[in-house]
Amino acid sequence: MNLRRVSAALLFCGLLIARGAAADEGMWTFDNVPKGRIKAASGFEPTDDWIRHVMRSSARIAGGCSASFVSPRGLIMTNHHCARSCIQQLSTKERDLVAGGFLAKADPDELRCPEMEINQLVEISDVTAKMAAATKGLDGEKFQEARKAAQAGIEKACQTNDTLRCEVVALYHGGVHSLYRYRRFQDVRLVFAPEMAIAFFGGDPDNFNFPRFDLDVSFVRVYDDGKPARTDDHFKWSASGAGDGALTFVSGNPGGTDRLLTIAQLEYQRDVALPDTLLTLAEMRGVLTEFARRGTEPRRISETLLFSVENSFKSLRGRWQALVDGRILAEKATAEKALRARVAKMPALKRDAGAWDEIAKALVRQRDLRKPYARIEGGGRMGSSLARIARTLVRGPLELAVANEKRLEEYRDAALPALKQGLFSKAPIYDELETLMLTFSLIKLREELGADHPFVRKALGQESPEELAARLIKGSKLKDVALRKKLWDGGPAAVKAAAASDPMLAFFLAIDGDGRAIRKTFETEVDAVIKKNTEVIAKARFAVEGTKSYPDATFTARLSFGAVKGYDEAGRHIAPVTNFAGAFDRATGRDPFALPKSWLSAKTKLDLQTPFNIATTNDIIGGNSGSPVIDKDAAVVGLIFDGNIHSLGGDYGFDPVMNRAVAVSSAGITHALARIYGAQRIVDELVK
Amino acid sequence: MNLRRVSAALLFCGLLIARGAAADEGMWTFDNVPKGRIKAASGFEPTDDWIRHVMRSSARIAGGCSASFVSPRGLIMTNHHCARSCIQQLSTKERDLVAGGFLAKADPDELRCPEMEINQLVEISDVTAKMAAATKGLDGEKFQEARKAAQAGIEKACQTNDTLRCEVVALYHGGVHSLYRYRRFQDVRLVFAPEMAIAFFGGDPDNFNFPRFDLDVSFVRVYDDGKPARTDDHFKWSASGAGDGALTFVSGNPGGTDRLLTIAQLEYQRDVALPDTLLTLAEMRGVLTEFARRGTEPRRISETLLFSVENSFKSLRGRWQALVDGRILAEKATAEKALRARVAKMPALKRDAGAWDEIAKALVRQRDLRKPYARIEGGGRMGSSLARIARTLVRGPLELAVANEKRLEEYRDAALPALKQGLFSKAPIYDELETLMLTFSLIKLREELGADHPFVRKALGQESPEELAARLIKGSKLKDVALRKKLWDGGPAAVKAAAASDPMLAFFLAIDGDGRAIRKTFETEVDAVIKKNTEVIAKARFAVEGTKSYPDATFTARLSFGAVKGYDEAGRHIAPVTNFAGAFDRATGRDPFALPKSWLSAKTKLDLQTPFNIATTNDIIGGNSGSPVIDKDAAVVGLIFDGNIHSLGGDYGFDPVMNRAVAVSSAGITHALARIYGAQRIVDELVK
Repeated sequence: MNLRRVSAALLFCGLLIARGAAADEGMWTFDNVPKGRIKAASGFEPTDDWIRHVMRSSARIAGGCSASFVSPRGLIMTNHHCARSCIQQLSTKERDLVAGGFLAKADPDELRCPEMEINQLVEISDVTAKMAAATKGLDGEKFQEARKAAQAGIEKACQTNDTLRCEVVALYHGGVHSLYRYRRFQDVRLVFAPEMAIAFFGGDPDNFNFPRFDLDVSFVRVYDDGKPARTDDHFKWSASGAGDGALTFVSGNPGGTDRLLTIAQLEYQRDVALPDTLLTLAEMRGVLTEFARRGTEPRRISETLLFSVENSFKSLRGRWQALVDGRILAEKATAEKALRARVAKMPALKRDAGAWDEIAKALVRQRDLRKPYARIEGGGRMGSSLARIARTLVRGPLELAVANEKRLEEYRDAALPALKQGLFSKAPIYDELETLMLTFSLIKLREELGADHPFVRKALGQESPEELAARLIKGSKLKDVALRKKLWDGGPAAVKAAAASDPMLAFFLAIDGDGRAIRKTFETEVDAVIKKNTEVIAKARFAVEGTKSYPDATFTARLSFGAVKGYDEAGRHIAPVTNFAGAFDRATGRDPFALPKSWLSAKTKLDLQTPFNIATTNDIIGGNSGSPVIDKDAAVVGLIFDGNIHSLGGDYGFDPVMNRAVAVSSAGITHALARIYGAQRIVDELVK
Repeated sequence: MNLRRVSAALLFCGLLIARGAAADEGMWTFDNVPKGRIKAASGFEPTDDWIRHVMRSSARIAGGCSASFVSPRGLIMTNHHCARSCIQQLSTKERDLVAGGFLAKADPDELRCPEMEINQLVEISDVTAKMAAATKGLDGEKFQEARKAAQAGIEKACQTNDTLRCEVVALYHGGVHSLYRYRRFQDVRLVFAPEMAIAFFGGDPDNFNFPRFDLDVSFVRVYDDGKPARTDDHFKWSASGAGDGALTFVSGNPGGTDRLLTIAQLEYQRDVALPDTLLTLAEMRGVLTEFARRGTEPRRISETLLFSVENSFKSLRGRWQALVDGRILAEKATAEKALRARVAKMPALKRDAGAWDEIAKALVRQRDLRKPYARIEGGGRMGSSLARIARTLVRGPLELAVANEKRLEEYRDAALPALKQGLFSKAPIYDELETLMLTFSLIKLREELGADHPFVRKALGQESPEELAARLIKGSKLKDVALRKKLWDGGPAAVKAAAASDPMLAFFLAIDGDGRAIRKTFETEVDAVIKKNTEVIAKARFAVEGTKSYPDATFTARLSFGAVKGYDEAGRHIAPVTNFAGAFDRATGRDPFALPKSWLSAKTKLDLQTPFNIATTNDIIGGNSGSPVIDKDAAVVGLIFDGNIHSLGGDYGFDPVMNRAVAVSSAGITHALARIYGAQRIVDELVK
């Protein structure tokens, strides 16, 4: 449940390259799969064809998850929690698909998701030399601008039409720059979702735990020109799953790891970024929990957001705990000291030895700038969809008027298809929830900057946060998708004119300059310094240690290998495979331990010994949610949906003894589809 | 606003003796006032009579605040926020005294507070030798028992009737044990309270800030046999207050400081206790904020609790920040190392050198035990009054059946008058708020121990936290004060019989043994080890450094000296005195910056240059709320109600440059009473 990517924006963290990996550790890029290491560990050596087939059979959900193609007709498997926004957006007060589940009886019954985009990675190419040439010898603002311009140029040249998505990815923190070319699908339709009660059985209490009993699966289908897309590359299906000891691969998009941040960066996370984020999430959790108690409808409209808040909270708390425990930091401090000493001694690198201190200095500046930056420029991330839309309408037309490579990166040509999908989405917007979250944001703005900060005075004027939020939401006409299109096409003048009678637009017009100013300061004085010096360290590390390693995760395609395996905890052995019987044993009849009616009434038809969830040693992290677990024949044996509690320190390093990935067994999925949900149509499509 | 004592129970912290103090630093016991130091700093040398008079003119509110006698007829001044529980308990849906304020026109109009107890310190005597003799050579459980027995015996012998309150206080952490004898007042009546809007003008955003504009004052009166109590010792009143540079004393009851914890203890606070508490408070804040939005009545019944949560949050966050910043810890680590080295070299102390490591080991055990201990034995502290009452009724009669010195300390004879006042209080109990808080507690219980913990399974059974909380609250008859008295007098058998039809009593009967067991483990393996070794360190420190210092705060009477003084912040000077004009300037008309109607309509009658709030260099901390600020003539010139943001690290050390106490000027109080509230009756009583 946890493995949806946690928004990196919350943390302002930079990434570094990874050291030589041990045991099952490693999230390998598809152009650097460690064939020899896999063969040594398992006896199986992947071929180049196998690797290309697995890469192209895998998928990414642009919002922060992974997925896989499982039929030639565009059928895609992912987690229930990865499709949950869509499922909620398709629900109404009268027909709650989150609670009740959904099954399309035939293609025409499949329901289009308002905001889902799926990417299929088709090709990886190296653009390191081009990027390096563009920023050579530059610093600060100039470095930042040249880098952005080069990236924008490469992406635009690649992305010749909207069915492609091209991204320049900095791997090994600028040690390597790769261009990732994806096939882009924006017509994604819901095929099947089980009831929330079984998708997230055990709820927050069981989240990040094992043993587990969750059917955290959903199926969607990508369409092309109104027909199911043809997807020749797709995984086979294993109806029996994988047993204890079986070799397993996970192909997915881990969102981010911080395995080789500098000590100063880790301390910043421990002392500043993570505690701040955790305290905000804890309070938001309280607000949302109590809001949901107002009634059925408030609960329905807020529960996806609450889930995401609770999930991030638990995940980040585990990460923070790993840093506080001290062992990881001590090990990394020793390693950093040794590397710095070696760098200082190498004549060619000597001038790079100051990079660590430059980063530490930038972090001191970041401590001062982080709150104003997050709160003033964060205007579009205030938990309100209308606020996000207003910010985009105010900025987008202004940005489109300048050259592609000079724009803020979220408005570059390559980013527009995804941006427009969100901007013109027909997903429902609920005034009550909008007001709740915008109020929360405005209270935090005042709390963090202080009631006397000029920006706070400007934003709030004489109003209280509650009053301002209510006025902006109530007075805005931006729920009208046609109006959004009109304003987007009408350009800055149209937006300005509309702001006269739309207080939300007026608000974002008024504060646009403040956000741009603090962002420029932050990017120049913090971001550029860290990026540049991180590249310096990455290159120095390459020089000292070589490149036989994997880069920190970047929400791009990675392959990990491992095995189905239990572990020992508090003196007892935890077996790696659970079964359906365990779910019935654990059920109390009360949320979150209540099995849905479909399960209770199907019980006699079930083989209760069917494998349900499994634990494996694969090295995964947030963003891997929805990743297929496959065997050496590239057949799906499971579906990643979580990690155990010991996996939460995985951001900083991999512990093969205790760290486990948690997946739904393909055997359990097949059994549930056939015996509980009457979804023989899907089973037939999976097993051909 | 902040300076109500933060419950030490949340932190499980031990206290240590303090080092030699610098500048205005120091919270001095009344039997060790540093006359020479005061004379050197100010030219004024307090006499023994002056000291005794000030001690006896000061008061403590048993719930966690300070106060002062300001007339011979039992009139007492404290903060509005210190009387706020009473003010809320006296309010009804129809007549909200928190929002509207209160003024008794004559004695008979004064309203009795259901739960307020006021203590007047009359005498201090040294019982160090008696306590030391009782525990000599003992360890673990035996040490703990002997210590408790000796203390219970001394207190019982002193407390010959219920109008006395006797407490053995461990100062310098067992370096000194003192017996504090108080006159106890339980008949306390509300005389005056301003509107919340001006008592807490600026609300949470301005809390712990300066400049400030708060009339955080209330007056109550203690009664004796139905008549205003005669209080010969009381402070005079200065209607003009104190200006920039004036010498100021603060006489109050600082709740607790941690200025000489061991490094291991400080790290425990930084990494475990404070973050845990902060995250819980943040979530509780969110729940309560949203609960209050349900309507006027939900807001009214929950706002005092929300205030206390927000206040603790801000205060503890500042404290945590001070530890994270690193400077304090580094200084203390150096000092600890030096002390340990000296102790190790002194032949008489050599065997004490291991005390630091013993404490560190006990803290490792505490990390494992803290959650079960807090959640299982914390049954009575679940935010629900009915839960607290049920726990007391289940335990009290059982405890009373054993000898005084063998009892849990909260049931010792000396503690009973206060316990009974709470148990038999007629304060209103609101089902909605009770259920909210009990649900929150039960969710945390499951979250912290895990859904599979045997105690969680026992407590929750098949119910969800929401269901269990609702059932216990709904089914309990304990709102009936007469029933509580009957059960208390009826003993264990009566309680057991009543539990058959009272689910709240049944719940606490069922879990009583679990709580006692974990408490015994905790007290033996953690608490006793830390107490014993802390005493060892305290004595070693006496031997090395002598005793010319002040002990860490213990919510007992202390005197601090300082001066009215501004400070520089972010390049600008902050003057130490604000005036009424500033309040009108700052008002926006919106909560929390809305002045009450009484102020707006009296504006033309006011001298807007009248001093309102002042900042002083006195060394204070939570618990000092309500302390009088006096001049050398023992006349009241102000009323402590807060510290500035820089005072929040004051738990660990005193920074004379930035740390400021914040008080209401007596000039402002006088002016407001006379011109705004028509309270000439009080003014006359104050100025005689």
